[in-house]
Amino acid sequence: MIAQISPKAQKVIDDLAKFVEEECIPSEQRYEQELGQGAQRWAREPPVVDELREKAKRLNLWNLFLPKEYSQGAGFTNYEYAHMCEIMGRSINLAPTATNCNAPDTGNMEVLAKYGSDFQKQKWLAPLLQGKIRSAFAMTEPEVPSSNATNINCRLTRTQGGYLVNGKKHWISNAGHPKLEIFITMVRSGKSSLEIMNSPIKTGEFSIHNQHSVVVIPAKAPGVTVVRPLTVFGYDDAPHGHCEIIFDNVFIPSENMVLGEGRGFEIIQGRLGPGRLHHSMRALGVSERALEIMVERAINREILGSSLADRGVVLNWIAQCRIKLDAGRLLVLNASHAVDLRGASKSKKEIAMSKIFVPNAALEIIDRAIQLYGAHGVCQDTPLAGMYAMIRTLRIADGPDEVHAEQLGRNEVKLTKRRIANKSRL
Amino acid sequence: MIAQISPKAQKVIDDLAKFVEEECIPSEQRYEQELGQGAQRWAREPPVVDELREKAKRLNLWNLFLPKEYSQGAGFTNYEYAHMCEIMGRSINLAPTATNCNAPDTGNMEVLAKYGSDFQKQKWLAPLLQGKIRSAFAMTEPEVPSSNATNINCRLTRTQGGYLVNGKKHWISNAGHPKLEIFITMVRSGKSSLEIMNSPIKTGEFSIHNQHSVVVIPAKAPGVTVVRPLTVFGYDDAPHGHCEIIFDNVFIPSENMVLGEGRGFEIIQGRLGPGRLHHSMRALGVSERALEIMVERAINREILGSSLADRGVVLNWIAQCRIKLDAGRLLVLNASHAVDLRGASKSKKEIAMSKIFVPNAALEIIDRAIQLYGAHGVCQDTPLAGMYAMIRTLRIADGPDEVHAEQLGRNEVKLTKRRIANKSRL
Amino acid sequence: MIAQISPKAQKVIDDLAKFVEEECIPSEQRYEQELGQGAQRWAREPPVVDELREKAKRLNLWNLFLPKEYSQGAGFTNYEYAHMCEIMGRSINLAPTATNCNAPDTGNMEVLAKYGSDFQKQKWLAPLLQGKIRSAFAMTEPEVPSSNATNINCRLTRTQGGYLVNGKKHWISNAGHPKLEIFITMVRSGKSSLEIMNSPIKTGEFSIHNQHSVVVIPAKAPGVTVVRPLTVFGYDDAPHGHCEIIFDNVFIPSENMVLGEGRGFEIIQGRLGPGRLHHSMRALGVSERALEIMVERAINREILGSSLADRGVVLNWIAQCRIKLDAGRLLVLNASHAVDLRGASKSKKEIAMSKIFVPNAALEIIDRAIQLYGAHGVCQDTPLAGMYAMIRTLRIADGPDEVHAEQLGRNEVKLTKRRIANKSRL
Amino acid sequence: MIAQISPKAQKVIDDLAKFVEEECIPSEQRYEQELGQGAQRWAREPPVVDELREKAKRLNLWNLFLPKEYSQGAGFTNYEYAHMCEIMGRSINLAPTATNCNAPDTGNMEVLAKYGSDFQKQKWLAPLLQGKIRSAFAMTEPEVPSSNATNINCRLTRTQGGYLVNGKKHWISNAGHPKLEIFITMVRSGKSSLEIMNSPIKTGEFSIHNQHSVVVIPAKAPGVTVVRPLTVFGYDDAPHGHCEIIFDNVFIPSENMVLGEGRGFEIIQGRLGPGRLHHSMRALGVSERALEIMVERAINREILGSSLADRGVVLNWIAQCRIKLDAGRLLVLNASHAVDLRGASKSKKEIAMSKIFVPNAALEIIDRAIQLYGAHGVCQDTPLAGMYAMIRTLRIADGPDEVHAEQLGRNEVKLTKRRIANKSRL
Repeated sequence: MIAQISPKAQKVIDDLAKFVEEECIPSEQRYEQELGQGAQRWAREPPVVDELREKAKRLNLWNLFLPKEYSQGAGFTNYEYAHMCEIMGRSINLAPTATNCNAPDTGNMEVLAKYGSDFQKQKWLAPLLQGKIRSAFAMTEPEVPSSNATNINCRLTRTQGGYLVNGKKHWISNAGHPKLEIFITMVRSGKSSLEIMNSPIKTGEFSIHNQHSVVVIPAKAPGVTVVRPLTVFGYDDAPHGHCEIIFDNVFIPSENMVLGEGRGFEIIQGRLGPGRLHHSMRALGVSERALEIMVERAINREILGSSLADRGVVLNWIAQCRIKLDAGRLLVLNASHAVDLRGASKSKKEIAMSKIFVPNAALEIIDRAIQLYGAHGVCQDTPLAGMYAMIRTLRIADGPDEVHAEQLGRNEVKLTKRRIANKSRL
Repeated sequence: MIAQISPKAQKVIDDLAKFVEEECIPSEQRYEQELGQGAQRWAREPPVVDELREKAKRLNLWNLFLPKEYSQGAGFTNYEYAHMCEIMGRSINLAPTATNCNAPDTGNMEVLAKYGSDFQKQKWLAPLLQGKIRSAFAMTEPEVPSSNATNINCRLTRTQGGYLVNGKKHWISNAGHPKLEIFITMVRSGKSSLEIMNSPIKTGEFSIHNQHSVVVIPAKAPGVTVVRPLTVFGYDDAPHGHCEIIFDNVFIPSENMVLGEGRGFEIIQGRLGPGRLHHSMRALGVSERALEIMVERAINREILGSSLADRGVVLNWIAQCRIKLDAGRLLVLNASHAVDLRGASKSKKEIAMSKIFVPNAALEIIDRAIQLYGAHGVCQDTPLAGMYAMIRTLRIADGPDEVHAEQLGRNEVKLTKRRIANKSRL
Repeated sequence: MIAQISPKAQKVIDDLAKFVEEECIPSEQRYEQELGQGAQRWAREPPVVDELREKAKRLNLWNLFLPKEYSQGAGFTNYEYAHMCEIMGRSINLAPTATNCNAPDTGNMEVLAKYGSDFQKQKWLAPLLQGKIRSAFAMTEPEVPSSNATNINCRLTRTQGGYLVNGKKHWISNAGHPKLEIFITMVRSGKSSLEIMNSPIKTGEFSIHNQHSVVVIPAKAPGVTVVRPLTVFGYDDAPHGHCEIIFDNVFIPSENMVLGEGRGFEIIQGRLGPGRLHHSMRALGVSERALEIMVERAINREILGSSLADRGVVLNWIAQCRIKLDAGRLLVLNASHAVDLRGASKSKKEIAMSKIFVPNAALEIIDRAIQLYGAHGVCQDTPLAGMYAMIRTLRIADGPDEVHAEQLGRNEVKLTKRRIANKSRL
Repeated sequence: MIAQISPKAQKVIDDLAKFVEEECIPSEQRYEQELGQGAQRWAREPPVVDELREKAKRLNLWNLFLPKEYSQGAGFTNYEYAHMCEIMGRSINLAPTATNCNAPDTGNMEVLAKYGSDFQKQKWLAPLLQGKIRSAFAMTEPEVPSSNATNINCRLTRTQGGYLVNGKKHWISNAGHPKLEIFITMVRSGKSSLEIMNSPIKTGEFSIHNQHSVVVIPAKAPGVTVVRPLTVFGYDDAPHGHCEIIFDNVFIPSENMVLGEGRGFEIIQGRLGPGRLHHSMRALGVSERALEIMVERAINREILGSSLADRGVVLNWIAQCRIKLDAGRLLVLNASHAVDLRGASKSKKEIAMSKIFVPNAALEIIDRAIQLYGAHGVCQDTPLAGMYAMIRTLRIADGPDEVHAEQLGRNEVKLTKRRIANKSRL
């Protein structure tokens, strides 16, 4: 609607829609049952996942995310991939994983494909692309506002034959996964915040933007401790989870350094923009699914002899949901196309607008669906409460709404100042 | 961004932007001064308007609205025209009039161009296209919910050589204009509501959709009384105004019937969809202007030594405004393109979403701008309060939000029922 | 502020505030730890609870809820008890239980105290008042809108020496508790909905209001099955839980009938009004606690060298929270006093206003606190996500917002009609 | 409900309610007609006003505002007066004026009663109390954020026998009134902002709080120019109006100084707190009236054979309005009682909460009423658009919402810091 979709992409979109509708959604209940209770939840991925993964591979619905610049890339535009992501979002617990398009593995694979050495690609990218192992992205730290990567404090120090890592990370998704092999980790390899603050020179070698590095830490390396899974509302999100991690004098060999010392910020920058967009895309699919089952409820629920779908209040809710959802989709598609046209760094405004609008719209939609379902809406009888919890984190992750909004506001102020200056120059 | 813009349209867009910025906006204060006080306000259009109209004609920024199907049409797509309308909205009191693209004349010209006889075209369409006369669209009635055209009760009866019209209309824009020549009037020429309600058959001749006609009533015909101008939040909107009208046994000759007796609903249908969209388009321009002067205020207003533009609360407001505005624009552009692709009647959903979302977003933006301006925001020192009043009517005119929302909701329910039926058929 | 508080009540309020602050809140972490993981969570109440209960008893902070009409009643007014409930709400998982003032046991004890036979009082009320056993209130059913008690379908049939109960209940709080002894159960003892709908006469014996009874079902009676605990946004709320129950041909002796066959509606009526109010009261305490830790976070969190508590956005949030909270408290206190003055049935308007306003306000407050805490806000590091989940159910339980709002709206319409009639009579 | 109302006050409340219902509201249409059009609007007060004033005097509904400390005071508590103000708000254009309880005359009379010399009392207070003359309160200035009185720049300089005043004021209510006699004016008699900012010492004589004075400027003094009336949205609010004023070398004799040079801030302080509260009180009456006519519309408007009052959406709106209105009333009554108990300066929190909550609630209520009335809601056919315009200024006047909210937020932070300090001290 905003841009072109190639016939190849359209076929994937159509196949994916069918796969999600006919395979993933009907498997959701089985997934929950196979997950089970207690420690078992973390011990193995429910078998249904691997079955779906095999089916997806056979249908060529696999690794859809990598841009064509990489030899292994499916080669879809962000605009095309946005459509796929939305469809995956309709079965958020199964479809992204089934197609090997789940965060944070996608972002990690992008990092390795773009910046990794041949050694790194062979050792970790290959099995990741085959879906044989899992990876975590260890950036966020409990003590600092980690939406700004320059705050990261986890310390990297050189030692013979490599490095030692010391620090604490939290909200590390996939960290509980039985197949986890590596942490792609953001570390401080240069000066400390304090040293930088006290340094008279803040550019060149002393720039706050070259004090960090990205390294690969093997999950089983001595000194790596998964302290605990963090819950989201009451969900543990096993088997992948979101965990607190301690790196205590963890040794890694030199070849685990990605791109080079001090280049962490550069690597991370490229990862975050589109990542935020992918989250918004999936959130649209979650919303669409929530609206769908909300309307079904309205149709099927009768009170005093008339269906809820005949009531003005309910029809107004449905309309408000549809408007928010479609407005959100247009913002996301527009941002995706902007990234295709001029890259993520020049599409910050569009990405930020999607990042703020879509999760808030999604929460409103899901909340209305919950209200319509009543007691069934908050418990395991519907996927709604789980959706709510998951989407709620999007208003916080990768920078809270308010930080992005302030940035957006500053951008408007800057543009207006420029306009005023131009005018007065005439 | 959503569709293509022809080079010809792009030139008009660029010229129009320059014209509005350099001619219209700087003339707004003069317009208010020339309007003056008291009865004089209704006596003549401020001279600045005709000056601007001459300039616009010379710049070929004239009659931009007519689609290419009509011989006189500029031939722009709805998508292209949406961009022009937004620009005009930036100087809402001057730019649409200056370019002869102001409601309700545009809709009336479309009616005459599409359905008018040669006689009607020559007599009224020609001078309207030249901007020599003004027209009103007399549909809304005080006693009935007029958003549904089938409720219209103003009575047309046959008499020798023509018809008699009897009835009351209100909110008739342009009715106070010194150059007003005609009322394009929706009348009931067939059965009354009561007769229809009691009729066992409701189709064919008895259909509620062929009981109405559209006729042209000369403004100076005996029996036409302009009762009073209605105010909008205290504004009289002179010299065009929005008036209450009584037609008391007004005679019109047969040749003033448009298209034929009983075809009023058909005529009106085609008029309303795009008309709603044009209002939304202009509302975007109004919003953009409001946001612009809001940011200027933030930059220029210092409190305790720091500019308002440095404050988090203000930056957040600006960001929220920008997001709403851009989301609204995407909805409108998407709807305009839908109309281009498949016609207004098959784009009801998209039009309704724009109709609901944009005025509400605009009011939020203008209200925030008012708040930032404080006392200057509610009075004549800024255009903001006037903008608010004008946009507030858009949540009511052509059907209140709630009616459109209910319709949208029903549409979702219908689609969902169809989906469920299809699924169970498999 | 709205009404008087007796010195006796004031002392309890003060002691309770101290007890909650110094005993309950500091024990919350221990409670979570003792709860543990897996099946153990349901096996026994964390020992800290009994320790707190002993302390509360010694401080005379025990059974504060029973009105003075009952011999065992502490004798506080609803207005006084509202203050106590709010304080308990500050430590929502511990304080109500520690003082034997937790739902649904309080409501059940009221039912037994007011309507129970001597046998029932001795057998179940006495140990409940001593805190030795727990009770559930089995009303809600999965298939019907249970906010209207006349919809209840769980079937009671007479049999030799007593009755048989057959039916399904869900959202039965306390049903998982290891000390659960009884279900106070709403059953249909009279005509079915269908029979009533088809009956020509709807009053007297056939009234929809005398087809139900309340009976006591022992938790261990054969035929009682606890199917599963229902989760609330992922939380299982062990050890009490909210469970799905099946009564399959459960036999109960005649003496388990409360008050008499067909009097269930009458019993239930008296229970729900004040119960809704108690939930609102506790929700205020939850909100106050959430706001408190939100402000603490604002004070302690520094970003770029300045505390969040210095930022306009944060200060505005805090102010909005405070206003909503205080407005909510005034509504609840006003409703409590209304109940004291004229009884619950004549205070429906005031109760409904509290029931709608307070949970919505609380959710807004908690959500803002979550946002300020970021990642810590949604996980087990703060009590916020748990608070959100719990309060979210209040917008659904005992009738969704919309049902109460519609009732309130009808009441306004009725009053206006009466006013118009009075006026025209003059 | 929150505090006691004396029998004397109750009688006034009852009489006032009757007076407003039976005299003021039915006179509103006549008032609008008598106001008329053009210059005439400012030439004389519509005769109906004086008729109502005579009636009110005879009913002892006159000067209800002055506290009992003043010899002329009716002696009602703020809590009692709040009830009266709300009732007056029901006919906002007539009832306050009819009872000589309209702003800004009330505040001015309070100033003169409390701080005026005998000369000032005799010359101006006496005729004001008799309703023979009108007064304006000249504080706000166009260039500075006047919600903070220390910003006021209008300059007072000593000259022989008195003072000269030079400066610009705007939004001066009553300034257009044909009976206007005096401006109670806030002026800078001491150091300029710049001098204070550069002064090393900021206390004692140099305090920012003793650089201002309050003086009485006769309306007809040479050098006083009423530049223009400012409109509120499109309303001119004739005959009192809100005007821009220039004081150009206006001479006033020494006896026109109130209380003494440098004591302006002290005088103003006492005036603003309760003044803000009175605005909130009247806003409640406006809201109650708006809700009333909204419900009447819902009852009377039929669409497709059913009344709007039968529709869920409308009933929900009505309920939301009722809740907001009653919550607002409790906040205002609570604040009024706080002022009675401990004075305005120690009730800042309560006053601020009312000041923020009530106008926002009122706007929401009025806006919903407008929407229900459709076209009639925005024009002169209902009082709604006028109400909206008037209440909208309350979010700006006497300090915008955001300033009060920030203050409230700071207060919460301060209290929390104190609580934390106390805790750690234990």
